[in-house]
Amino acid sequence: MRKFLKKIIRNSRSQEDGIFFDKLCKILGFKPLNIIFYTKAFTHRSTNKLDKTGNPFNYERLEFLGDAMLGSVIAAHLYNEVPTGDEGYLTKMRSKIVSREHLNELGRDLNLIQFIESKANPLHFGENIHGNIFEAFIGAIYLDRGYSYCEKFIHNKVIDSYVDIPKLEGKVISYKSLVIEWCQKEKKQFFFDVFDDTGVEDQKYFGVKLIIDQKIIGKGRATSKKKAEEKAAKRAYFALQEKIDKK
Amino acid sequence: MRKFLKKIIRNSRSQEDGIFFDKLCKILGFKPLNIIFYTKAFTHRSTNKLDKTGNPFNYERLEFLGDAMLGSVIAAHLYNEVPTGDEGYLTKMRSKIVSREHLNELGRDLNLIQFIESKANPLHFGENIHGNIFEAFIGAIYLDRGYSYCEKFIHNKVIDSYVDIPKLEGKVISYKSLVIEWCQKEKKQFFFDVFDDTGVEDQKYFGVKLIIDQKIIGKGRATSKKKAEEKAAKRAYFALQEKIDKK
Repeated sequence: MRKFLKKIIRNSRSQEDGIFFDKLCKILGFKPLNIIFYTKAFTHRSTNKLDKTGNPFNYERLEFLGDAMLGSVIAAHLYNEVPTGDEGYLTKMRSKIVSREHLNELGRDLNLIQFIESKANPLHFGENIHGNIFEAFIGAIYLDRGYSYCEKFIHNKVIDSYVDIPKLEGKVISYKSLVIEWCQKEKKQFFFDVFDDTGVEDQKYFGVKLIIDQKIIGKGRATSKKKAEEKAAKRAYFALQEKIDKK
Repeated sequence: MRKFLKKIIRNSRSQEDGIFFDKLCKILGFKPLNIIFYTKAFTHRSTNKLDKTGNPFNYERLEFLGDAMLGSVIAAHLYNEVPTGDEGYLTKMRSKIVSREHLNELGRDLNLIQFIESKANPLHFGENIHGNIFEAFIGAIYLDRGYSYCEKFIHNKVIDSYVDIPKLEGKVISYKSLVIEWCQKEKKQFFFDVFDDTGVEDQKYFGVKLIIDQKIIGKGRATSKKKAEEKAAKRAYFALQEKIDKK
């Protein structure tokens, strides 16, 4: 019965909504319960839309909410991850992670701009729109599924992929150069192998392996070849850390 | 068996810990699972304590965590409560609520300073210690019981008792004067009746009724007579709002 109802609901949804829903599921990693929050997160003020009660229907208030959720999830992560860091250190690291530049990168990598509904000229959006809708998207997740889903999403999409504490501390600029340097010193053969290159235009995806002396030492996936190489190198670095640090 | 074990655990705890535990339960409104977080929240850096891993054991890092949790819970509350407020409004209101002055008041009213462990002269603490340990206390709740308990505590102790949006907007300075003014205009008899006056010194508690024309219109409880009167007047104001606003 439930399946049957679901089918009806599914079929009655317009095709466009269906595509939006499916794309959302892929990015979120779970099914949204109430799609209206996400629609709001991608509605630009230039549409002049209002909700049922006559209040503006756009993503600006959701940015405020998402920013707050990001702040507390990142705070808890840093608190647990860096037990040696004092209050000043934690505050500084958090602002690096939630910097405008970083949020823009996150929004751009998820290609959230594909969903935007606007009457303004997209050329006039400016860089910050990526970060703004990323924050609004987080706010929508909170309203749709609560704090725990919001937390999981931020862990999967922000922390695991982007928060690299030694790098943020400025101790490591690039894992790729660290690993290459070590290979050269140790006279080891190495190369990066692109094993996956999928998607089109805005949604490209790359998979890269780092092979050292004929063995796969690290793999990485990202939206650019450069980023995928850096991820593979980072994993290789941690696998080889003891050997590298001895040098 | 569980009861029996609990009894043993309870009895084996030193008397002092037992008192701390009981007082905590009263303030928290639930039983803490791991008391160590709360002990940390009340340990001043002057004790020079270290944890098992050699890191400083004091409340300073917990302040960072508590501040972030307060920020997100208050953000979500404002988002839901004031659907007409734009991003700038929400940001401004949040900073009023989590202002240093306000946090100090919250910490002082809960008398958290009674738990402090310090080697410094308490006279040198300054006003901000109340707000600081209040934030650390919120951080401890998060670590002990997670976001949902933290959220409930902030709703009970911060939002319900202190967050008065019209007042924060500067639209209402005092509900007491609003209600008194109305009673005088309407030639109604009114008086505040203190029906509860308990606790000693730092932990005084007052209960006040506002009686208008022989009827109890509002009740309030707080740590001072003045605050309890204001609470009672606020409730009376909302009960009478339609009548008052007509004038």
